[in-house]
Amino acid sequence: MGVVVSFEEGREDPEAALSTLIGLVREDLDAVNQVIVRRMHSPVALIPQLAAHIVAAGGKRLRPVMTLAAARLCGYRGQRHVSLAACVEFIHTATLLHDDVVDESMLRRGLASANAVFGNKASVLVGDFLFSRAFELMVEDGSLSVLAILSRASSVIAEGEVLQLTTSNDTTTSEDSYLEVIRCKTAALFAAAARVGAVVAERPRAEEEALESYGLNLGIAFQLIDDVLDYAANQQKLGKAVGDDFREGKITLPLLLAFRRGDAEERAFWKRTVEELDQREEDLAEAMRLIEKHGALRDTVGRARHYGAVARDALAIFPDGPEKRALLGVIDFCIARAR
Amino acid sequence: MGVVVSFEEGREDPEAALSTLIGLVREDLDAVNQVIVRRMHSPVALIPQLAAHIVAAGGKRLRPVMTLAAARLCGYRGQRHVSLAACVEFIHTATLLHDDVVDESMLRRGLASANAVFGNKASVLVGDFLFSRAFELMVEDGSLSVLAILSRASSVIAEGEVLQLTTSNDTTTSEDSYLEVIRCKTAALFAAAARVGAVVAERPRAEEEALESYGLNLGIAFQLIDDVLDYAANQQKLGKAVGDDFREGKITLPLLLAFRRGDAEERAFWKRTVEELDQREEDLAEAMRLIEKHGALRDTVGRARHYGAVARDALAIFPDGPEKRALLGVIDFCIARAR
Repeated sequence: MGVVVSFEEGREDPEAALSTLIGLVREDLDAVNQVIVRRMHSPVALIPQLAAHIVAAGGKRLRPVMTLAAARLCGYRGQRHVSLAACVEFIHTATLLHDDVVDESMLRRGLASANAVFGNKASVLVGDFLFSRAFELMVEDGSLSVLAILSRASSVIAEGEVLQLTTSNDTTTSEDSYLEVIRCKTAALFAAAARVGAVVAERPRAEEEALESYGLNLGIAFQLIDDVLDYAANQQKLGKAVGDDFREGKITLPLLLAFRRGDAEERAFWKRTVEELDQREEDLAEAMRLIEKHGALRDTVGRARHYGAVARDALAIFPDGPEKRALLGVIDFCIARAR
Repeated sequence: MGVVVSFEEGREDPEAALSTLIGLVREDLDAVNQVIVRRMHSPVALIPQLAAHIVAAGGKRLRPVMTLAAARLCGYRGQRHVSLAACVEFIHTATLLHDDVVDESMLRRGLASANAVFGNKASVLVGDFLFSRAFELMVEDGSLSVLAILSRASSVIAEGEVLQLTTSNDTTTSEDSYLEVIRCKTAALFAAAARVGAVVAERPRAEEEALESYGLNLGIAFQLIDDVLDYAANQQKLGKAVGDDFREGKITLPLLLAFRRGDAEERAFWKRTVEELDQREEDLAEAMRLIEKHGALRDTVGRARHYGAVARDALAIFPDGPEKRALLGVIDFCIARAR
């Protein structure tokens, strides 16, 4: 079941690459965390409580790190990137809260997310608060360019989420439609986060666009690997149960490839389990067997490597240095998670 | 059961006041509607579909009319107020969509709102899209002052909604807490909408603040009367069923006053029906009887008249003219709805 990804000789250990990048922006990231805690404060106590449930829970802070590292790569020496990185994390957290809101049909399966603890409505409203607060922070920063980038990204994320909703449980979704969904709902924020780093450093448009391209392609690779991990064994360390996507009937590339490559009987299996959500206990094991049989995880990782390569080339215009090396290392890190 | 509100001699018929105001900004409002339709477009078909369900359904467009009329009052002759009025309506629509998202407990009662037709998640995501689109429109307009006013208003609305959530079904809520909720969740957007009109006209700060104060106090009066109407008979013309607030256990001023003025037995009634939501068929009639007995509707209208008077005085610094007269008339219109 393991997916083996080989790395070129001489490259750093992928696991260490993220630590290296975070180490480079450690001081800035601590400042971001302080801004986050300070600016999610509200006299309405439930707001910091619920926001802390998800913001303070941490995670890798990959998106704000993009802004911090991009600004450094561009030689920026001010402090604006700190509050803008906090904006990026607020927008990400708002989308997580809203993404967790479940439809009636899914409530029945009793997920344990923020909305399960605090209720759908609280998740929606605190998400709105964080989203508005992000815009307030941007207004304080005062750059219309930054506001344009992040308001556009926010619209695109929402469009991607709605698109995903309309393709959900549809096994005939094309690979291109699926890619459009993850480009919008995941990659757009990585792209905007990285571009903002170049904007605050007042670098030429070519560097803004290079960082945007890096973020976009890294984000696509990141999501593809996330989708692989959902079917990969030994991923308990990620705090994610294997098979969640399958049980929800979520359409991801491993499933799409297995469906397209399968025979009539296999397609009937996918239709029953994923479209009709008529699942039995042994179905997850069968799904994983079919995905393995058709090399769907291996080939999804292959697609991710393609986007990783594009992200790598996007950074070629920047001179060598510790920030560039660390940003390149993060591409390997994202993909190596599938080992 | 009727609440009689008398009007000073010589004032225009309140019903006509809103039509007069809308007539004054008719051309601009048509332009706003065109911007709304054009800018809620998305390649993701569900977005305009669901947005149309609520935006195109119309309503009085009271909030964007505030922006249009305030700009006119300030002598503005450009076109910026049109797209900013559309922003205001997008923000309002986003909050309506999010406000309709129901918790598990309320799904059981089967409300027929946008979320009932399209699902909770679609309502949340399309709301996010409209909200982001509003910020994109503001960025295109390019005024950081406008962005500051409307991002602040959006945060305050979200805080108000969360505050309402934490006070819901609590009969011991103070009148001040209740006022704080409606000040945030309803009045803040009226205030911001009116202030933006003065900002685009580049008027002195005193006029910005006068219009903000007008909007804020009008918004409070408007919401107080809305809460009265929920217990007032003969309001089918509003498309709103009498008793919705009661059935949801929603805390509004008529209920708070009746609770505070009631004896132990009456308070036990309110606790059972509103806090525990243990309601029988005859309870709504009993609730209305108690509210009538304690003059709670009459006194809520009295509170609304107080805020209406403050709104009226806020406009005193502006010279007389058709816009000012119409804006003053709208105060009477809002309050006269309770007749």
